[in-house]
Amino acid sequence: MSQAHYDTELTLSDERFTARYRIAAETLAEAEAAARALAVEQTIEFPAELTTGRIAGEVVARVEDLRELGDGAFAAELSFAVELVGGELTQLLNVFFGNSSLLPNVRLERIGLSPRLAARFPGPRFGVAGLRRVLGVPKGPILSTALKPLGLSPSDLAEMARRLAAGGIHLIKDDHGLADQAFAPFEARLEAVVRALAGTGAIYAPNVTAPGEETLRRARLAREAGAGAVMVAPGLVGFDRMERLAREVGLPILSHPAFLGGFVPKGDGGIAHYALFGQLQRLAGADAVIFPNHGGRFAFTKEECAQVNAGLKDDLAGLAPAFPAPGGGMSLERVPEMRTLYGEDLIFLIGGALHRRGPDLTANARYFRALVEGA
Amino acid sequence: MSQAHYDTELTLSDERFTARYRIAAETLAEAEAAARALAVEQTIEFPAELTTGRIAGEVVARVEDLRELGDGAFAAELSFAVELVGGELTQLLNVFFGNSSLLPNVRLERIGLSPRLAARFPGPRFGVAGLRRVLGVPKGPILSTALKPLGLSPSDLAEMARRLAAGGIHLIKDDHGLADQAFAPFEARLEAVVRALAGTGAIYAPNVTAPGEETLRRARLAREAGAGAVMVAPGLVGFDRMERLAREVGLPILSHPAFLGGFVPKGDGGIAHYALFGQLQRLAGADAVIFPNHGGRFAFTKEECAQVNAGLKDDLAGLAPAFPAPGGGMSLERVPEMRTLYGEDLIFLIGGALHRRGPDLTANARYFRALVEGA
Repeated sequence: MSQAHYDTELTLSDERFTARYRIAAETLAEAEAAARALAVEQTIEFPAELTTGRIAGEVVARVEDLRELGDGAFAAELSFAVELVGGELTQLLNVFFGNSSLLPNVRLERIGLSPRLAARFPGPRFGVAGLRRVLGVPKGPILSTALKPLGLSPSDLAEMARRLAAGGIHLIKDDHGLADQAFAPFEARLEAVVRALAGTGAIYAPNVTAPGEETLRRARLAREAGAGAVMVAPGLVGFDRMERLAREVGLPILSHPAFLGGFVPKGDGGIAHYALFGQLQRLAGADAVIFPNHGGRFAFTKEECAQVNAGLKDDLAGLAPAFPAPGGGMSLERVPEMRTLYGEDLIFLIGGALHRRGPDLTANARYFRALVEGA
Repeated sequence: MSQAHYDTELTLSDERFTARYRIAAETLAEAEAAARALAVEQTIEFPAELTTGRIAGEVVARVEDLRELGDGAFAAELSFAVELVGGELTQLLNVFFGNSSLLPNVRLERIGLSPRLAARFPGPRFGVAGLRRVLGVPKGPILSTALKPLGLSPSDLAEMARRLAAGGIHLIKDDHGLADQAFAPFEARLEAVVRALAGTGAIYAPNVTAPGEETLRRARLAREAGAGAVMVAPGLVGFDRMERLAREVGLPILSHPAFLGGFVPKGDGGIAHYALFGQLQRLAGADAVIFPNHGGRFAFTKEECAQVNAGLKDDLAGLAPAFPAPGGGMSLERVPEMRTLYGEDLIFLIGGALHRRGPDLTANARYFRALVEGA
């Protein structure tokens, strides 16, 4: 024998989880080679011919299925031993798409969880039903907007929130650029907005995107102050910090897409909308997910938005469904069309358009609510 | 007046930082409109016509320069008030590329720091010079490899480390898939490998990529145990957690590219290699940055790799330069060519090829070292 052959001492369970990838390839043979290489890349990242026994048979991912999709694309279903994860979300994401994020011909399309993973990562703590209870809106779409522009003081932002709530907005969130700047420090802003919304029925979701443990600390402050929810950008803080928010703080979570756009499929790579804005968000505990609606300032298609909606509401090992919150330059007149696309479990997130209509924010909010209720 | 017009009570300093973007556009007029829209998107994300005074003039980013690059591309230099950041890396990254990550026609090319930001984010704690001191290699390339495959026990990994060190490898890191799995729990692995390397002159960089505070806890354990460095994947844990590692733990940091590939430029979007694997890594404290070398399993070009190298060593407000650590399916025979491309301040990271050469790892490592020293 001219080579060492590595094996493991560990006995693995039969429990495996799955991921489906889209592989760009000219021929079935090329796709098969790419799928086998992917199975190695996401697990042992080591010459497969130098492994044996359980490492070769169980630690390396298995290509369970490979089928042609047409147009130079193939769907590969891989399965992974649950022991690869060690119970950590960072390592689970690494197995799903760590090194493969660097491969130009591989896209993560779908994830599948095994029972042990679903128990370890129970998903949205509130989900659609729980967030409805918190908001006191048992059915129909939710109305939402953001406090902005950057530069306003806590009292300006609080007054804006008061006017919006008086017009019937259910959920008022920070602009995602509001962090802890001198013009509107987090704690002063939290206190002022919560006070302004007391008794209105509207709830406030301050942005807790921040370095390190500060995310958790701000979320706890929000809970203690009486904010009804929090917003966080997992692209900036990592999906695992959002998952900790869900587990440790106990407020509904709005996920913001800032710094996550790198993963939007371009060419043949990236993470499909279904997984990126749907499944992975629920895996990491989001109760509502903000993303760019089609036809706005960003470039999502209607079909991609439908995929986000489906990924937020599919049967992912029993994890609760989460709300889609499409935004990004929406106009009020698009409300009926959006309801048709997303269904009743939908958060309408309208920002600048609510201000453009005229100086009376309460009247604008009432107009918005009437449109939504009439849809 | 039919609209409210918002202004701020805050007086801003004159201190501004910058970013250069590549904008895909057909005409100069289209590029100008896109640059102005980008200036709004990254700051107030609000109808600019409804702002006035300091918000309109200072809080909104300024388009300082716009020039045609040819082939339907333009370079836009934007400047931002330092007050937008509030001293938080998450918000700085949000200003650089939060919402713009979702725009298909905008690529982040370069960042520029202002004095206050450079003081707040001092960059690599060790850098090229400091890591050389830790390794005891005052000049010439550094030799590095990874402990793998997944599935091996701590004692297997430690024995592998011992053999590699005996052959002259300077820096031995975990495979990035080694987290805290049952087959090689973090603490047992740390202890076994550090013990195996004692007295060899080689240093160990365990992978501390983990959820939440566990990253910091493992890095502190590594320091106490006597590991000489740590490895972390900022794509999985967030750049701000890597920055905390640099600030709070005091070991050299190797940055791994897992889950960061989404940002690699595809189409007209993404973050240019210069910024993604160069500048942003130093901003967040990496002393050495792993990335896929051209011609390996991934698709980086030689020019893109040269850009990474340049971004790791440029004058970024005085932040220390960091080592490039190209890897990803390198063969031993490519050593001379790599040295020509990257220069002397280079970490050779060779994984599987070191095992493929034959069963005697120490002999393979010696061959590798001789190649590097002869280059």
